[in-house]
Amino acid sequence: MNFSSKVLEEAVNQFAGLPGIGKRTATRLVLNLLKRPKEELYFFADALKSLAENIRYCKICHNIADDEICNICSNPSRDRSLLCVVEDLRDVMAIENTAQYKGYYHVLGGIISPINGIGPSDLNITTLTDKVSKGEIKEVILALSATMDGDTTNFYLYKKLKDFPVSITHIARGISLGDELEYTDELTLGRSLLNRIPFDTTITIK
Amino acid sequence: MNFSSKVLEEAVNQFAGLPGIGKRTATRLVLNLLKRPKEELYFFADALKSLAENIRYCKICHNIADDEICNICSNPSRDRSLLCVVEDLRDVMAIENTAQYKGYYHVLGGIISPINGIGPSDLNITTLTDKVSKGEIKEVILALSATMDGDTTNFYLYKKLKDFPVSITHIARGISLGDELEYTDELTLGRSLLNRIPFDTTITIK
Repeated sequence: MNFSSKVLEEAVNQFAGLPGIGKRTATRLVLNLLKRPKEELYFFADALKSLAENIRYCKICHNIADDEICNICSNPSRDRSLLCVVEDLRDVMAIENTAQYKGYYHVLGGIISPINGIGPSDLNITTLTDKVSKGEIKEVILALSATMDGDTTNFYLYKKLKDFPVSITHIARGISLGDELEYTDELTLGRSLLNRIPFDTTITIK
Repeated sequence: MNFSSKVLEEAVNQFAGLPGIGKRTATRLVLNLLKRPKEELYFFADALKSLAENIRYCKICHNIADDEICNICSNPSRDRSLLCVVEDLRDVMAIENTAQYKGYYHVLGGIISPINGIGPSDLNITTLTDKVSKGEIKEVILALSATMDGDTTNFYLYKKLKDFPVSITHIARGISLGDELEYTDELTLGRSLLNRIPFDTTITIK
């Protein structure tokens, strides 16, 4: 693409470097920005600078936070015996939205992915074993994506943690609520049969 | 969505304000940025600031340029008798890529769109009639999108220009090269029949 302006081209290249955004979409985004008042461009630029300067990671769970300790880790009313291991911030937000979990989190900062060159040493795993070795945690819940990389990471973490006196669980895999059986893929349906659950443990009539 | 960090939330909101990008995609983009070296965030912020400070519009054709006059308008070897009217920069780039056009451009900066509150006074139309009134231009080619808004704008411009001694054309509408007749929509096929072209004007055997 031959841009009539280097300034424009540079901005387009920055947007086109983001995942899932090509040159054509990037051009559309930049032209949209150009139609706005100049102050909005400064706000956008400041938000990015602030990302570079002010983002911190919680010292306990490694989640993104504005302070040294995040809101969840600094909340004393949560359950200290539960620790949920997740890939990143989005998963913490997703689980918090369910309102079903009251323990603490541990953010790995990624999952083991040989194809992307991410190994165990790139993740927050030593701090996880340190936490578990203190003995206060009774259950570690592995809440990673149900993908090949997620399974690899689950297995690696299981091997690291199995000698500690802690129960290790992973989130259930089965058919989604509202799904019809005939449209469920074979692997998921097979897994949901294999991991069938005694009826009286899930339905409680009060 | 409850973000664990205000800084993060602000950056996500900036991205989510762009057309076609929702909160979820915006979060993915910001997390991607956070995994990069800090300098890259500064480069991105600088590119946006530079957009606000350094972008200029060519005084002649209104295209985005780094100087007072753009590359195309300052090129004396192009054909002064032809003027192609387009919506924005992207259309100039698209037409330049065809290598079929050697005249000059006039960028309207949008098209008349009552639904988006864009009227003739928001576009570069007075400078267009000024240019045409000087008499050097022999043909004005309206190259706007084949949409309702494009047609409205075409008609408005035609009414503004029809009293000048200039021929007014619009780009041909018909079936795309490589298209099969049976898959072409009725409107396009109807138009291509209505605007049929004498055989010997398009095929020249040398």
